[in-house]
Amino acid sequence: MSFRATVLTLYPEMFPGALGISLAGRALERGDWSLETVQIRDFGLGRHRAVDDTPAGGGAGMVLRADVLAAAIDYASAAGDERPRLLMSPRGKPLTQARVRELADGPGAVIVCGRFEGVDQRVIDARGLEEVSIGDYILSGGEPAALVLLDAVVRLLPGVMGNEASGGEESFENGLLEHPHYTRPPEWEGRPIPDVLMSGNHGKIAAWRRQQSEKLTRERRPDLLEDRGI
Amino acid sequence: MSFRATVLTLYPEMFPGALGISLAGRALERGDWSLETVQIRDFGLGRHRAVDDTPAGGGAGMVLRADVLAAAIDYASAAGDERPRLLMSPRGKPLTQARVRELADGPGAVIVCGRFEGVDQRVIDARGLEEVSIGDYILSGGEPAALVLLDAVVRLLPGVMGNEASGGEESFENGLLEHPHYTRPPEWEGRPIPDVLMSGNHGKIAAWRRQQSEKLTRERRPDLLEDRGI
Repeated sequence: MSFRATVLTLYPEMFPGALGISLAGRALERGDWSLETVQIRDFGLGRHRAVDDTPAGGGAGMVLRADVLAAAIDYASAAGDERPRLLMSPRGKPLTQARVRELADGPGAVIVCGRFEGVDQRVIDARGLEEVSIGDYILSGGEPAALVLLDAVVRLLPGVMGNEASGGEESFENGLLEHPHYTRPPEWEGRPIPDVLMSGNHGKIAAWRRQQSEKLTRERRPDLLEDRGI
Repeated sequence: MSFRATVLTLYPEMFPGALGISLAGRALERGDWSLETVQIRDFGLGRHRAVDDTPAGGGAGMVLRADVLAAAIDYASAAGDERPRLLMSPRGKPLTQARVRELADGPGAVIVCGRFEGVDQRVIDARGLEEVSIGDYILSGGEPAALVLLDAVVRLLPGVMGNEASGGEESFENGLLEHPHYTRPPEWEGRPIPDVLMSGNHGKIAAWRRQQSEKLTRERRPDLLEDRGI
């Protein structure tokens, strides 16, 4: 069984988008993963297929209705569907590479993309939606966040990456930011490649890279070191 | 002058993607912002338009060449161009809503999307690229990250949001996660809307929302409270 993604959205035409191209797109064509969209509006109410209403207690914006979204979720994810149900939301738990790896090891994901002011809390509670945040900023909706989450997951699926990238040494895989990279030419605009990288001494090169990683992490992301208790 | 985005990428067909639809798409049509892509491969070397090479010092993956990328940047961003030059990279400074707002208040952005193992450090240094990370996970390339960054920026541009969303009360705008939302029906699957929201007492409603925001932030994101010194 390959990884199965179902995205609930008011803008199904945003998918596969960037996921239909390059690495993720070739993986999609090969069947390494599948992507299905569900139009939330198909479950809307009345002649206008209303999906949202004004917030209880007042305030700006509109709120996605619990009954409408629940109907879409129940359609997309029947009883026995073991895929996690994610709601892309800035209120969610920040996405990490560890969570991406967990998702990639699982059967897939049902991903709800919110729009408007928010989603009625009762459907989050009643349908066990796991709120996931891709970062501390506000998007126009959950769709760009879903594209990012799926891109991160798909590259880790079996057979997808091949030789296009190395899985192991990258930022976050070892809890550190990645060391600087260099390639030909050996000198460019008066800037040489650091001698150690041209030395052919693999031990020294590995030590230099590790040291650069630690230095960069200390300068830019001391929080990552704290998380590891360093 | 409206916000001007130039994206340097090996996959220009990924743009505008989701940014051509809904809020950002209508803003693009209206000319509230503009989006131009530059194909890095057009500056590649030789008959095969090579853009990358093996990493100095060995290792997996390929590194984007400094000379090729510099030529693309110099083409896209001539002398006098005051737009910041961003490189989407997991090694970068984490994107925040404050930085998004700064970018939205500026003339635009030149956004470099990396692929492969990384980008030659010399072009980052020589062309003053600001590394920006959208989160602590690894993507197949900078393109999905650029889509997210632009989506976040575009919704803040003058005239874009209109009545579609409220600018003020959202997560991060006040350093807290957003309170829960509710809308009709008043009871759904046995779950009522909290009484206070039905009370019509605006003072009580505001206090409840504030308290819920603080509680949620304390439970899910104590780091945000620490950042504010609470």
